[in-house]
Parts: sequence; structure tokens; C-alpha cells
Amino acid sequence: MYSNLWLNYQKVSINDGRKKRLAEIFQSVSFQNIERNHPVMVSIMEELELAALAMFGQKVTVSEAPQALCLQLMENTDFTDGFGNHQKPLELEGYSIWRRDGHIVVLAVGYEGLLYGTYALLSLLRQGKGLEDFCVTKRPSNPLRMLNHWDNMDGSIERGYAGNSFFFADNELCITDRTVMYARAVASVGINAVVINNVNVKDEATYLISDRHYSRLRELSELFSRYAIRLFVSINYAMPLDCGCGSADPLDGQVIKWWTDKCNEIYDQVPLLGGFLVKADSEGRPGPFTYNRNQADGANMLAKAIAPHNGLIIWRCFVYNCMQDWRDKKTDRARAGYDYFKNLDGRFDDNVILQIKNGPMDFQVREPISPLFGGLTRTNQMLEVQIAQEYTGQQIHLCYLIPWFKQILQFQTGLKNARTENATVAQLISGEAFLNKNCGMAAVCNTGDDDNWTGHDMAAANLYGFGRLSFDSELSAEEIALEWIRLFYLDMGGTESTAPHRQEIEEIILEMLIRSWGIYEKYNAPLGIGWMVVPHHHYGPDVDGYEYSRWGTYHRADHMGIGVDRTGKGTGFTQQYLEPNASMYEQPHTTPEELLLFFHHLPYTYRLKTGKSIIQHIYDSHFEGVQDVEEMIRKWSRIEQLLPQDMTQNVTARLSMQLESAKEWRDVINSYFYRKSGIPDEHRREIY
Amino acid sequence: MYSNLWLNYQKVSINDGRKKRLAEIFQSVSFQNIERNHPVMVSIMEELELAALAMFGQKVTVSEAPQALCLQLMENTDFTDGFGNHQKPLELEGYSIWRRDGHIVVLAVGYEGLLYGTYALLSLLRQGKGLEDFCVTKRPSNPLRMLNHWDNMDGSIERGYAGNSFFFADNELCITDRTVMYARAVASVGINAVVINNVNVKDEATYLISDRHYSRLRELSELFSRYAIRLFVSINYAMPLDCGCGSADPLDGQVIKWWTDKCNEIYDQVPLLGGFLVKADSEGRPGPFTYNRNQADGANMLAKAIAPHNGLIIWRCFVYNCMQDWRDKKTDRARAGYDYFKNLDGRFDDNVILQIKNGPMDFQVREPISPLFGGLTRTNQMLEVQIAQEYTGQQIHLCYLIPWFKQILQFQTGLKNARTENATVAQLISGEAFLNKNCGMAAVCNTGDDDNWTGHDMAAANLYGFGRLSFDSELSAEEIALEWIRLFYLDMGGTESTAPHRQEIEEIILEMLIRSWGIYEKYNAPLGIGWMVVPHHHYGPDVDGYEYSRWGTYHRADHMGIGVDRTGKGTGFTQQYLEPNASMYEQPHTTPEELLLFFHHLPYTYRLKTGKSIIQHIYDSHFEGVQDVEEMIRKWSRIEQLLPQDMTQNVTARLSMQLESAKEWRDVINSYFYRKSGIPDEHRREIY
Repeated sequence: MYSNLWLNYQKVSINDGRKKRLAEIFQSVSFQNIERNHPVMVSIMEELELAALAMFGQKVTVSEAPQALCLQLMENTDFTDGFGNHQKPLELEGYSIWRRDGHIVVLAVGYEGLLYGTYALLSLLRQGKGLEDFCVTKRPSNPLRMLNHWDNMDGSIERGYAGNSFFFADNELCITDRTVMYARAVASVGINAVVINNVNVKDEATYLISDRHYSRLRELSELFSRYAIRLFVSINYAMPLDCGCGSADPLDGQVIKWWTDKCNEIYDQVPLLGGFLVKADSEGRPGPFTYNRNQADGANMLAKAIAPHNGLIIWRCFVYNCMQDWRDKKTDRARAGYDYFKNLDGRFDDNVILQIKNGPMDFQVREPISPLFGGLTRTNQMLEVQIAQEYTGQQIHLCYLIPWFKQILQFQTGLKNARTENATVAQLISGEAFLNKNCGMAAVCNTGDDDNWTGHDMAAANLYGFGRLSFDSELSAEEIALEWIRLFYLDMGGTESTAPHRQEIEEIILEMLIRSWGIYEKYNAPLGIGWMVVPHHHYGPDVDGYEYSRWGTYHRADHMGIGVDRTGKGTGFTQQYLEPNASMYEQPHTTPEELLLFFHHLPYTYRLKTGKSIIQHIYDSHFEGVQDVEEMIRKWSRIEQLLPQDMTQNVTARLSMQLESAKEWRDVINSYFYRKSGIPDEHRREIY
Repeated sequence: MYSNLWLNYQKVSINDGRKKRLAEIFQSVSFQNIERNHPVMVSIMEELELAALAMFGQKVTVSEAPQALCLQLMENTDFTDGFGNHQKPLELEGYSIWRRDGHIVVLAVGYEGLLYGTYALLSLLRQGKGLEDFCVTKRPSNPLRMLNHWDNMDGSIERGYAGNSFFFADNELCITDRTVMYARAVASVGINAVVINNVNVKDEATYLISDRHYSRLRELSELFSRYAIRLFVSINYAMPLDCGCGSADPLDGQVIKWWTDKCNEIYDQVPLLGGFLVKADSEGRPGPFTYNRNQADGANMLAKAIAPHNGLIIWRCFVYNCMQDWRDKKTDRARAGYDYFKNLDGRFDDNVILQIKNGPMDFQVREPISPLFGGLTRTNQMLEVQIAQEYTGQQIHLCYLIPWFKQILQFQTGLKNARTENATVAQLISGEAFLNKNCGMAAVCNTGDDDNWTGHDMAAANLYGFGRLSFDSELSAEEIALEWIRLFYLDMGGTESTAPHRQEIEEIILEMLIRSWGIYEKYNAPLGIGWMVVPHHHYGPDVDGYEYSRWGTYHRADHMGIGVDRTGKGTGFTQQYLEPNASMYEQPHTTPEELLLFFHHLPYTYRLKTGKSIIQHIYDSHFEGVQDVEEMIRKWSRIEQLLPQDMTQNVTARLSMQLESAKEWRDVINSYFYRKSGIPDEHRREIY
């Protein structure tokens, strides 16, 4: 059993003029300059037929003569829009929708664009937009829009909070009707690349690129290609070590030959493969360091082997010493990515992309932006975010992450070049700043084989939102949320019973989504310090859980104060930023307060801009966070009255688990700091 | 591969008069009043033959006429010793050894006693005692001397630190030559009862008492019986629930019939079975509470079903609420055992034994004695200790536990009755105080399928020592240690190369063993508070690891002080003790300081009898603990010169792991309390 996510086309009873006109659009479609047997075209027609049948109970007829709906491929990239204006080229993935002589036209250069245009059209319809709004031209913001699944071949998922894998079971790749549903859903929001297996490649997954899995890989790559998705796999960098070479040294001729042969073999069997994702020299994974080689040596060796097949090497920058001594206050994990990669800038082949996590640590609820953004100027870069809610409530807590991702994209790195005065992260990864093509965004995915795919119904808004944001980074978090709410809860403007309450439903759920990240942050680790989670599984509070550990993740709280001094007088991490950020982070009073303790060790009595002391801020924000969850639950209870129970029960159950956990966070954090500081809450609330 | 533990008979080169005489003893043996085919007698002869062959390369001949060695069963229990003095009866398990007319005589009433006497004789010989010392009469201190193995049927061992199970693999009971070696070893130190499977009975282990395992159980019970050991199994209290009854209510007629039938069935197939060990209503295990029945209802129901077969029910008292709210300072896990069982005193059938952990919590490095000892006066009791070093260094740290067990046995409970003024725990469990027979000692065992059985070579001293102490509770921890050292490292007084250094070897290793528990305690949780371990696996420090958890195990440390107030003003736990202990624990200044923080919440500035503050004591003891390990390693390096490498390398490797871990304990504990209290070390040593 699985849901159709945001593609759950509802039967429409024709009860007004608008819906009648919409039905007419789906009666017949005409093609212009289109090869009907193109694999992507087949998917487009299947989607149109599915939608027409489900929504209007009718079949779609195809005609040469212009019909209510026209799909058109341009013969060249020269592009004139619906108003006769000459525009910049659409490229292969762009599309334009407009109305012409009472027809609706979807125009594109490539079948990919036509697919996205068709999904966009369906989305506009289903969101209840008026036909007058059907005038939109879009080119994707990012060349690569990728999902990273951390699925293991035994069917488990690392950091999976929505059941088991639907890609793997019992060490086999599984292709079912659910795989098609997945491809449709992610293609509909613009995803064009998918890594199906965990970056920690071991056991059978090492042999995913071997004879026994090629035929399934090929089948999956072909299925994906019908939705304009390229299949990628994570590989084990040390594979040649165990497979005849006895080494994985990237400069060893035998190793080079091994990978060259392996790539030839793979592409012979799976010609549509996009390339490899590699986690090397990280958290126990093997890599070029073993052979005293650097990260560029490793990545370029693979890049050269795969280049003849137009494959890409996505090389993760998540490299740090995970055997740190907690007593050592000089070493700073936050510095590691920059320290390892900055000096290699410009030394990576063009078909290598460095995949950089948004922050220098690891997907905390709040982190500064990685200084590699702005630090690297001659290297292909991809932003990695995590919609699997490892540190953000594990799909039990509601935490809509798109507002956070917007902040990340909009962060001004200080980089200045011919094309930008002060490049944002969005400009670096989109190709705008460097005019490169191999770049984009990747998200560690939050799906599993739960019926609703994402554990929490509303966690699907993160999957939807990541796709939409990577395709169109100009969208606001609110716009994206509203789209998802309308598609998921109010298809075609709602049913007879929900439509009258449409605005109220939208407002309440929108507020829940938009506020949720901030609420989660309130009852979590304070002021950007992060990591106060139960070790290993990362759910629930444990303030000292990582304090005396080897992971480089410390808060350094003592009786007097808390925070890590990462200034020039401390670990020097601030100096990895370009100006004006380096100076901004250097002083407590110029550091954004939500990151204060990430950059500075300060006394509990330090006054924030609100006039509150840090300790009072900790108490207040933690009490507030729980109150906010309670308020959210009160508001949701109104939604429970307005929507049918089968649409609300999942969220209702999880909200109550969230409240329980939020109270635990509040009480543990407050008690910890009260016991340690001895400073009482000004409002004398209960602290244990 | 497995070692022979302390039964590793070494070849003796006859190079002095003593050894020549010893060889003569093993040339021929005579029997008096003995049936040679008795299963235990067969084992005795096998042991003698094995020893003679291994040590002297000779066979043993048997003769009717008195020989150098005489084994003799008395025809009645009337017992006159070697000097013609009338003595109290030996009972079935006692023995007497003396010299008569140049012969050595081993005298007993039962074959069990003869077995123990034979092992004692071999031990005396191998320890290098002079023949003039061969005059000893022993009656076991405790009727039941039991090992509890926490082995799972899949081959894993709960809290196992020496490899996998040698009793189970792949859900089958395995009987191999290793099983015989095990039986010989534990019988040689007086063990007479063994529970082979984990008290947490689930999965296949529920069905250990079913058709598919009876034949192996029978085989094992017969093997054990040749060494005077009774086989016990742990059972799943809820078994009838899943096996046709639909209930496990102890007062339900169907359930009663089910267990009656089940016992009839088992004893039909495994007539030598000793009985069942039961963990009910504890840590998620089912029990009578589910049906609103009490612990006596559950135990007696089983007892009545097994009574016709002379079986015993060993019922664990480890019952407490493991879903406690850490915010709740009224509930006290330490109280739970007494609260659940005290009111049931006198209501258990005579073939029920309550198995009581030494302390009220769970095998911490230091705890007060459970107030059930002294609290129960009409109930069969057995003391449960743990030689599996769950909280005492997991067989990586050296921690010889017998000094601790001696303190436990010698604890004066305050109980006064016709037979004792102030009963010790030893008197309560030996039958001395209550004249009962179903009582004794049990240890959670520390063995696995490692070559050396116990992970750390010297952890075998705990297995040896527990057996010896349970058989002869009058032995001192030093005497037991010295026996083990001589048997393990210096068989027959040592080899040509080690014998000259015998005294030095003995002294060094004896000091290591005897001091080890105290050293471990120094760098562990301070002053009896316990529990500052990494949750779940329980190795290494995590001061707050259990502080905000559901397990009822808190230290309540804040900026000012630490400890749990268990006095009348606190949780009232002290009042569960008899006088004078209740009063002693009520006041900090009369509480033994090693338990100070278990009973009292005190400021860091509280002065101990040494004049030191608590905080300075924490710092000092933690620095000392590490220094002591370093000193132990220095002393051991002398042993490395004196003994062959294959006898030292295991300990050498583990000592270095212990040192690393001890430093971690020192630094985490000191840093935690320095950061929390803000009080500096008077000696300004490095704290982080």
C-alpha cells in the first residue's frame, strides 16, 4: 500500500463553469513536432490520460489539428513567448505555458521540458488557479536536482524514518509499480537525478556495480529515463582493493585500469547511468588518504575512467577526523571541510562535482553556511541538504525545512567576480557565478516504504519542497508550502465539504508548516550550538551525549558559560569566511544571535539584543517552544473538524508524540543548565 | 580452541623427593565401599587418570587392597576424622582428606563429596602444598552453588564479554567436548547447579522446554550429573499465553493445568532437571502483575506444578518500574525489591527460592546490601552476584570481585533470631539462620567461547573464586586468589624457569588481583552513587547518561552538590533496613563513606573524614585510580619477564586498554564536576 503523494488526482464533479472548461482541456490534445514514441512522451501521455480519467472520467483523444491542449516542441532554441516577445532560450529543461486562441499551449525545446510543463499545467489546474493565470515560463534554477537515498541493500535505510527501502530488499534491487509512482512524483517537482543507495557502501552494495545487478540497474535506469531522471549509484572507493587489485591507490596504474575497465563494463550494461556518488575518507570509509593521496587524486582518477561515458563523479566534502580527543580544544571539526578542500580548488576535473553540506558540521537544526561556499571558485559545487529529519525530529516532529533552505540559498558569501558582486550560495551552485553546468542541489531523502512514503504526512512537504526549490529557487517557502497544501489537502480547490473552508485550512496548515522549524529550534540546542541529542540514533535530548566523545561536537558548557570559541583567538574557523562574514562572526555583538554559541564561548549572563541573558533566553525559548507545539495542536484540532479523519489521523498522532518529546527537550535542557549554572529562572517556572 | 582453565595439568619432571612421592600416589588407587560404575565415580576416575597421565606420564591401577591413594565412601553419616575424633556428619557433599599409614585417604558420604574431595586433593598437590598439609575436612557452606548463564539460543550472550555462547548456536543446544571441560572446571570449584539460558527468555528460548529440545536437554543433564551438577533452565512466564491457554494468570485453572502438564512432560523426558529460573514482571518481561496477581501467586503456581518432580523454582526479585519519570524525585528504584517482596514473606512454597541481587540497584561497582536480606525471615533466599563484569570493566579492566563478595557475605543485617544475634548475609543464605535447605549463592556467569573462556585471563579468577567462595565462604579473598594464581600460573610450584621466582610472581599477581576492585572504584562513579556509564552497553563514562532517563538511576548533581537523599526525609529507603543499619544510613556522618552519595545529597564542600571535601575527593581518587593502573602495569612488566609470553600477552594487552579507559573515566568525571561545581582542584592538575 502506498499513497499517490501530491499526485492523488481526485474525481471532479462538474459543478461550475471553470471545472467544465478544465474538463474540455483534457478531452483532446494535439502535438506539434513531437515523436509520440519518445520514452518521455509516453510518460507525458500516460500522465495526461491518468489525470483525465481520474479527475473527469474521460479519455483523451489525440489529433493533429490544434486542440484545447497543445503540446509543442520547438525546432530550435530560438524562443518567442506567447505575446510574441523574443526571449532567452528555454534550454532542454525549460517550458512555457500560455493561452492562444482559446487553446492552452505547452511549449518546450526538449521532452524533459515538456514533461515539466505538463506537470506544471496539471499542478496549476489542481491548485484551483484561474485559466487566466496560465501564463508561465520556467527554466530550472539548477542543472542538477538530485535525491540521495541512504538505502541499504538489505532493505534498511540509514537515517530512515518512514519504514524500509522500496528500492532494495534481501540484497536485490526491486522494481515495482511503486518505483513508477516514485519516479512520477519526484519528476513532477523537477528532480532529474537519483542516487538509490547509501553513501556508506558496504556488504552487498559494493557489488551493486557488478554482473549480478546490471540487468536490474539497466531496467531501473530506463524506467527513470522515461521521467527524465538519471540514475546514479554510490560506490565503494576501495572496491578494487577487494576485487583483484589489492590496492585502491588512485595513482596506481593497476587501479586506474581497474576502474577504466569497470566503467566500460558498467556502461556497456547500463548505458543510461548518470555516474557515481562517493563518500571517501569519512567516518571510517576508505579513500585516497590511505595511500597518502589527496581528495583530487581520488576524484580525478574516477572522473577520467567515467568521462568517456559522459558520467559524473559526485564527491562528498564531508571529510573530518571522527577520532578526535574531546580534551583537545584546538582541533575544530567545523574547519575540516575547508582545510581539506580549499587548497585543491581548481584541481578537479570538469566532470567532478564537490557535494558540500550546507553547514560545516552535520545537518543540525541551525548552522552557519559552509565556508567552502565562497572559498571554492574554480570547482564545480553542489549543495547538500538533508530532508531526512535526522536531527530535526525524525519525521515525528513537524519541521518544514524549506524556510531554512531558502536562508541557505540566499546567504551572501562575499565572493565577488565578473558576474556577481556578492555571490549567494544559490548563484554558486546554479552555474550563474561560474558559468558551469555540473552543479546544483542534492537532498538526503526522507522516503521509505510507509504507506504515506515519509512517516509524517507533512514531511512530504519537504520532499515536494526540495524538488520545487531546486527547480525554481526564486519561489518562497510560503509559495511552495501553499502549493503542497493545495495539492495534498485541497485538490481542485477541495471537495464539497472542504471547499467552503479552503481559506481557513490553507491558513492553518501554512502557519503550522512555516513556523515549525522555528518552533523545533526553540526547544532544541540553544543559539546554534547544536548536538545535544542522544548519541547514535539522534532522537531526543542528551546535553552531554556528544560532549566527551570522539566526534568533534562539543558545547563546552561549564558553571560560568557555554559555547565554542571559533574566532581568531579560538579555533580560527571564522577566518575561513570571506569578508564581511569573517569580521561579522569574529565579534559576539555582530554575530547573528541564532549562531552566537556556535562562534563564541560566552557567560550565561551575557545580554542578548532582547536584553535577556543567555540563560534566561534558554529557559524562555524552551518554555515557549512547548507552548508553541500546544498552540499548534489546538489549531490542528480545527483542521480535524474540517478534513476527513483519514486525512488527519497521521498528523494528529505525531503531534501528540511531538509534544511529549518537546517537553522532554524543554525539561532536560532547562534542568541541565539550571543545575550547571545555578541561576534560577526569573519567572520561577518548574525546572527539575 | 579452548584452554583447560585451572585444570591445565602440566607435565612434571621428577626432580625432587616430593614430586617423586606425589607420582607414587597416582600409581595406584584403592576403593572402599564404592560402586565403580556410578556416573560420578566414572568422572572421578577419569580425572585421576587424566591428571596422572598428564603430570607423571603414568597410568593409574586400581586395587582392592589399600594403596597410596584410598577413596572411601562411609556407610553411614557417622563421621570420625583421621585422628579418631568424632565429628558432625559430612552430609552428601562434604569430604575429608587425611594421611593414614602413609596412604592418602579421601573420605565422603556421597559420590558428590568424593568428587569434591578428589578435586581438592589434586588442587592441594598442584598448589605445591607439602604432604603434611593433607588434612582437611570440608562441608559446603551453601546448599546451592549456582551459575546463571545469560546465553541466548542464537549464540549471543547478554552482557557477554568473552565471545559467543558455547551452549547454543543457531537456536540449538550444542554438546561438545568443551561442555565436558566446562563441567569439570566448575565442578572442581564446587558448583552444583547451572542455568544455561538467559533469564530474558524470548524467541526460540521460550521453546527450550519443548519436544524439539528435550533430547539434548536430557543429554546435557546427564553429562552434568556425572559432575554432580543439576541442570536448570530459565523459562518464559508467559509461555502458556502463546501455547494454547490464551492466559498466564497464575490463578487460572487452565494455566495451572497447563504448567502441571508441562512439568510432567518435561520430567518424563528430562528427569534430572533441577528446576526453573524465572524473571517475571521485570524490564518488560511478563509476569503475574499482568493479571493483578502478586509475585507469590506466580511463583507458587509454578512451584506446585514442579513439586512432584522435586524441582525448584528460583524466582528473581529484580522487579522495579523501568518506566520512571526522571523528574519524579519521590519514586526510588532502590526501594522496589523490598516494597514488592517484603509483604509476601512467608507466603512462598518451600520449593521456591527468591534470588536477590546483592544490592538494591543492579551490580554497580559499589552498592549497599539489599534490605531484603534481613527483611525476609520466612522465605528461602539466594544471593545473586554478577561475575560477568557488566559494570566493572567488561573483562577488559581487571576487577577481581571476591573481596567485594566477601564484604557482602559478612554484612550484618541486624536480624536476630534463635540461631543468630546479628545475622550476616552468609548466615541467611547458607541455611544457618533459618535451618532451611533451599538457599545458596548464584552468579551471573562471565564465560563465552573465547579461547580463555573469560576474555581477560584473570577474569577466570572470578569464576574460580565464586565457586570456591560459595563452597567455602570462610575462605578469604586472598586465599582464593592465591590458589588460582598457583593453579593457573605456577602449576606444581612452577617450571624450572618460573619456580625460582615463585614468591615474586605470587606476590605481584596477588596484589594486582586484591587491589583491582578498589582501583576500578577509584576512577568510577564516586562514593557509591553509581551509574555514570554509557547507556545500554555500560562501558566507559557518561555522567549524565542515565540522569534524564526512565531507568530510575540518578545522581541529581547540580552546581552545589550531588547525591540522592534516601533518608527518611528523602525517599525513605534507609527505613527498609533493620537497626542499627537504618540509623547508620540515616545520617551522613555515620554512613560508610564509600556509600555516602548513595544515601545523601550533599554539597561538594562537605568534609569527609579525611578532611577532604567531596569535590577534592573526586579529583584525588580519579587521579589516583589512573596512577594505580600505571603502577599495576609497571609491576606486571616484571611478570612479563618471569613468565612465558603466551601466559602474559592477553593480560598485557588488556592492561593497556584498561589504562586508556581509566584515563577517559578520570578526565570525563573530573571535567564534568569541575565544569559543574566551578571548584578548582587544590593541586591544579589538568582538568578539561
